[in-house]
Amino acid sequence: MRLVVIGTGLIGGSFALAARSAGLFADVLGIEPDGERGRDAVRRGIVDGIVDDVPDDADAVLLASPSHTVAPWVVRLAGFGGIVFDTASVKHGVLMLVRAALGSLPPRFVPCHPLAGSERSGPEAAQPELFRDRRVVVTPDLETDAAAVAQVTGWWRAVGGRVSAMAPDRHDQVVAVTSHLPHLLAFSYLQQVNDEHLLHAAGGFRDFTRIGASAADMWLPIFRLNRPAVLAALDGFSADLHRARALLEQDDETGLRSFIDTASARRRELPDDD
Amino acid sequence: MRLVVIGTGLIGGSFALAARSAGLFADVLGIEPDGERGRDAVRRGIVDGIVDDVPDDADAVLLASPSHTVAPWVVRLAGFGGIVFDTASVKHGVLMLVRAALGSLPPRFVPCHPLAGSERSGPEAAQPELFRDRRVVVTPDLETDAAAVAQVTGWWRAVGGRVSAMAPDRHDQVVAVTSHLPHLLAFSYLQQVNDEHLLHAAGGFRDFTRIGASAADMWLPIFRLNRPAVLAALDGFSADLHRARALLEQDDETGLRSFIDTASARRRELPDDD
Repeated sequence: MRLVVIGTGLIGGSFALAARSAGLFADVLGIEPDGERGRDAVRRGIVDGIVDDVPDDADAVLLASPSHTVAPWVVRLAGFGGIVFDTASVKHGVLMLVRAALGSLPPRFVPCHPLAGSERSGPEAAQPELFRDRRVVVTPDLETDAAAVAQVTGWWRAVGGRVSAMAPDRHDQVVAVTSHLPHLLAFSYLQQVNDEHLLHAAGGFRDFTRIGASAADMWLPIFRLNRPAVLAALDGFSADLHRARALLEQDDETGLRSFIDTASARRRELPDDD
Repeated sequence: MRLVVIGTGLIGGSFALAARSAGLFADVLGIEPDGERGRDAVRRGIVDGIVDDVPDDADAVLLASPSHTVAPWVVRLAGFGGIVFDTASVKHGVLMLVRAALGSLPPRFVPCHPLAGSERSGPEAAQPELFRDRRVVVTPDLETDAAAVAQVTGWWRAVGGRVSAMAPDRHDQVVAVTSHLPHLLAFSYLQQVNDEHLLHAAGGFRDFTRIGASAADMWLPIFRLNRPAVLAALDGFSADLHRARALLEQDDETGLRSFIDTASARRRELPDDD
């Protein structure tokens, strides 16, 4: 079995390392527009070599490049005989672009999103345990080939993922709240942070802003592809923030306590925190 | 030397453990309104015993109870001969209340704020290394006794802290941005988080919301005591968030990229991240 990984950074590199270690593929080739990153991926044993295009004898293609490149690659690979799967943080937005270009989804394209990001990127951040016990959402359509879905599901499980299925538009709404909005808030928060603030940053600041170090190359296309859901999540947040401001301004002790208690109880429901 | 710690939770308990281990005090007594917490602090060897009031032979009193209790304790201890120091996250707001009650600050009261919080609390969270390499801000006034400041500074250094001085109102403005605002944002963000969101929470969500698990007993008085600075920080944030929303709604690729780049570069300036 031969895998081609498009994008040899954190996600693609980690899948390549994990898949190799699980014995899923005999060889792994990379497609990487960034020459230095490609050479680094080879040096680190993530891929056996870098190629310019998907060879005809490949069995599977993993699209792990930034979100806006996924639809163009799926369109370009429409005639490819193997399985194509991706890792983009936006699903409905990507599938709409593919449908607009092809009229329908290629049956052997399995849309996936492993919930295993990091503010780090590149081959140096790749590690074979990245997907261990992480949720992987697959969003197949009625057009999607069931055998391809089963195959890809098996691969994610083999690298440690917990696979579940979801409708693509629902997925995009959920991750708009759980992931895209927090990034937008962290980016916004950091605008007013100056040198004196950094000097007085403690652990809470570090944790809260960690995602704010993420790269624009990754996040700009995510925001743009999932714009309606991100704007809706943002407006929901703004309404709650407006409520918090009013409670504080009015010095409403009971209301503010209940507001904090709601948040705190909700966060404590999250199991297995480190 | 005898120390009395008022509030035997994370901060007070950690200082007691660290001070004992550094040999700063021969014995340490606790004042703790929560009976179970007090017994737990004794069981864990954090304090030698629980008392109802500060004994006359005590040399120092550490106020590590919630922020709104600090000013009343300082007022109550106005006639105490030893050193009094605190750990509240608000300084100017507390000093105003003390001045309102006493007309001036007791000279042997040294206002302190160790930047070493956690969403955890209680004696079970206390650990002697909590202040290692953490910044400790002291905000003495012209009325404050220089020898007392030097003594308290020495204690914080002995438990690993990096002490620096600051004007109390400036301190409150800085921590409003670095600490109080992020907590308010996390509490607000968590309002719209439901069970389905928690099921899809990844590492970014965990880090971003960790401070949102903090207790209302601690945060309600901080927000109220530092209300003007928190509202100002909040309004600064809201303006930036409004800008982000407009950039996204207008699909302004260049503007949004620059916005993310600014945030990301700022966060990456923070050294020694884990």
